[in-house]
Formats: sequence, C-alpha cells, structure tokens
Amino acid sequence: MEQNLLSNIKIVLVEPAGALNLGSTARIMKNMGLSQLVLVNPKCDRLSDEARQMAVHAVDVLENAIIADSLPTALAGCQRAIATTVRSRSVPIKLEPPTVALPWLLAPDLSSALLFGAEERGLSNDELKYAQRFVCIQSNPAYPSLNLAQAVAICAHELYQAWLNGNNASIAEPQTIVSTSINAPIKVLEDYYQDLEAVLLEIGYLYPHTAAVKMEKFRRLYNKANLQSEEVAMLRGILRQIRWASKNQSSLPDN
Amino acid sequence: MEQNLLSNIKIVLVEPAGALNLGSTARIMKNMGLSQLVLVNPKCDRLSDEARQMAVHAVDVLENAIIADSLPTALAGCQRAIATTVRSRSVPIKLEPPTVALPWLLAPDLSSALLFGAEERGLSNDELKYAQRFVCIQSNPAYPSLNLAQAVAICAHELYQAWLNGNNASIAEPQTIVSTSINAPIKVLEDYYQDLEAVLLEIGYLYPHTAAVKMEKFRRLYNKANLQSEEVAMLRGILRQIRWASKNQSSLPDN
Repeated sequence: MEQNLLSNIKIVLVEPAGALNLGSTARIMKNMGLSQLVLVNPKCDRLSDEARQMAVHAVDVLENAIIADSLPTALAGCQRAIATTVRSRSVPIKLEPPTVALPWLLAPDLSSALLFGAEERGLSNDELKYAQRFVCIQSNPAYPSLNLAQAVAICAHELYQAWLNGNNASIAEPQTIVSTSINAPIKVLEDYYQDLEAVLLEIGYLYPHTAAVKMEKFRRLYNKANLQSEEVAMLRGILRQIRWASKNQSSLPDN
Repeated sequence: MEQNLLSNIKIVLVEPAGALNLGSTARIMKNMGLSQLVLVNPKCDRLSDEARQMAVHAVDVLENAIIADSLPTALAGCQRAIATTVRSRSVPIKLEPPTVALPWLLAPDLSSALLFGAEERGLSNDELKYAQRFVCIQSNPAYPSLNLAQAVAICAHELYQAWLNGNNASIAEPQTIVSTSINAPIKVLEDYYQDLEAVLLEIGYLYPHTAAVKMEKFRRLYNKANLQSEEVAMLRGILRQIRWASKNQSSLPDN
C-alpha cells in the first residue's frame, strides 16, 4: 500500500499555554490527516476538559501526543523541519508562504516537522535555528498575530491540499537540491554545530562571550545548504584535522 | 485611494452557537483584513467573556457585527454569495475548493458574502439556495467535520492571499530574502575556495592527488547555501585562524 506521507509529519508546539488551542489543534490535525502531535514543555493539560471540548472526535490525537523536554528532543529522528514565524526577525531569513514551503515536508521515507511557537511570543531566534526553512502566514499589518490553532489550521490545510494534489518533495524541492539528496538528520547537524563551536573556541576564532551570536550565523549558513549526511561527515573530518594540526608540529611555510 | 476589495466581503454565520467560535472568527477576520461580520439568529452572546477572550484585539469586529433575523436579510445588497459546505448533499451542486472559488468574491464595486452554517448542522439545503457557488474544504474522510472558526480561518486566509496576489505585486511577493542579503560575487567565492583548498592541504585533510574531487564536493555544498559576502568573510576568518593555530603552540587538551 502507498505510504501516507502525512503520517510522517510531526506537528511540534513549543510551550503551548492554552488548552483550547491544544484541542483545536488536535481536531484540525485529524481533519487534515495529520496524527503526530509533539508538545515541548506544554504549559497546560492536554487532556483537560477545555482541550477535550475543542478536540471533539480527535481526543486520540491528544492522548497519543508525545511530550518532549526540549526542541532537539522533539526533533530527534527528523530530517526536515520548517518553522513558522509571523514577523521578520533581526536575523535575515528567507520567509516563504505556506503553499510554497510546506509541500517540502511531504517526502517519502523521511520524517519531518512543522514547528509552532508559544502563543505569546512565537519561536525565539534560538528555536528558529533548528529549522531549515521558514514559513510566514501573511496577515493584515493592523493585526498580524494569529491564534496558534488558527495558524495550525491554515498550515494543516495547505499540507492536506499538497498531499491531495500529489505534490511531493521532488516538486517542492528548492532548485539547488538534487531530488535524491537526503538531508542529514537534525541530530547529526546538531552534533556538528557543537563540535564546530568547540573547535572554533579551541583555535581562538570564537570567544566565549560572542560565540552564541557567531554560531547562529554559521548555523544559518549551513542550514541554507540543506546538508546531507555525507557532507556533514566531510565537515567533521575537517574539524578532526584542525584539532590534529593545531596539536602537532606545523609544517606550514611562514607567510 | 484604491478600493479595498476585502472590505466589501461579508462573513455571514448562520445561527452560530459557540461564543469561542465567534471570538476566534473575529480575530482571524481582522488578521486577514476582513471587517464585516453578519450573524443570522446567533445562539450565543457575541460580547460574552468567552467571545472576547478569543477575539483578543478584534473585539471591534464583534461590536460592529450586524445581527440579522434571516439569511435573505443578511444578504441584502449583496451581488455575490458563496456557501461553504463540507459534504455532498442530496441536491447535486458543484463543489469547488476555496482557492478556486473565493477570489470571485473580490470584485470592485460589488458587495459579496461568504456563508457558514451552524456548528452542528452546517447550511441546510434551503440556506444553500441563496448562494451562487459552493466551497468545500476537503478533509480527511476519517474525521471530515471542521470547527466553524477553523473553516473561517482557512477561507479567510485564501481570500487574503487572493487579495494580495491580485492587488499589489509588491505586497504579494512572498517576503523573500531580506533585501540586505546579496549573494557574494563569484570572484569572492573563488578566492575562498582557493584558500580553503590551500589550508586543507596544509593541515593534511586533503591530499594532492584527491584534492580536486573533494573540493568539488565542498564547492557544491557551499554553493547550495547561496553564500553572502559577510558569510564568506566569516569562513575566511576561520581559515586564517586555522593557519595561526597550527603554527603556534597548542593549548588543546589531549583527548
């Protein structure tokens, strides 16, 4: 039987605070064929009366929700992540409308995630760095801030439409990527970033007090490249060799 | 000044029963530039605490809502009406997806309406007859029934997208790359690749006889990232620091 690509997609809510929103999210997820709900440090009870009231016949989505204690834990095993954000940030990121970016999550044999921030603050810059692409739901400047569950509804509907239309990853893939390329798992990327930071501190390129800001830029740079596992392995090979070279007698010419 | 076609559209809810839904509807309407809410025989208080709680900064939409005692009264003065319905009816009507039908409501010098039925029953056959076209939000057969406010959200978002796309190309433009992000000139990239190859040879990561093949992979990797000049400068800074570290006494722990 054909793989249901919708079932590979995790809807990840970071620190949701409203039980009504959780219930509404569960309902629209089930309406749109999505089943995997992940809650990162939820601030409300997913099985409260309010949540059940809004979920109606989708209480199973709430019951089966996975609770994670951090965003990286929530993304374990995912190869693709898209973050939603409503406003432009100080950091220059490319914002795409849902129709353009979301079909990228529908890929065979991949696990992917769509991230939503907390009701009051959205996703922080620190949280955004885990995503490779960024979706912005355009809205009226007079009142741009959408309710969380409404934002989920709009995105879930787009995913379902894309799925119905038979849109698949090879169509939605940014042109630079060969369709067979498989993104490195987010965990692999994360390990690389940790190692990169450590090496850059060791060789004196980074200073502890400015490392975070610089590292965010490097993450953005490499996330734009949609790194494959083989590429991450090459980059880590360089780090190993830098460590080796800086510990051993140099053979560099003095120029 | 140009006419705002969104302001010509009435969102008509027939016998809405949930105050939370009214509040959520008001919020997403304002988010998507819609302002005319019409309630036909509402079964709840549009200004209740629950409604206000969900409306947040869109209480004005609730306050300005028009109450009508029948659907024909609600539609007085409208030239175009589209009804939403989730399932096929005994009466044979042509169902269209929101993307296809809704832009029809955005017409200059016309007043138009988008109709939603009561939460429990949707629009009756008798109510449907007031519409000229019919929108169906496709959904999962396992749980096809959407929450009223979620259905409004999906349609309002489609209307706003259609308005953006038809109205003003510069706004409609997905908020793509922030204007400050400009790809690095090819010469700058080329200098970086030359320098990277030299350093990787120096630290023993590359060997002369395989350097070309490996470097091609690194070029592909960085080309995917569409590097900006500032990013190339950061990467070259790392190369300088690698050279420095490998020529100087190491302070690395021996691990």
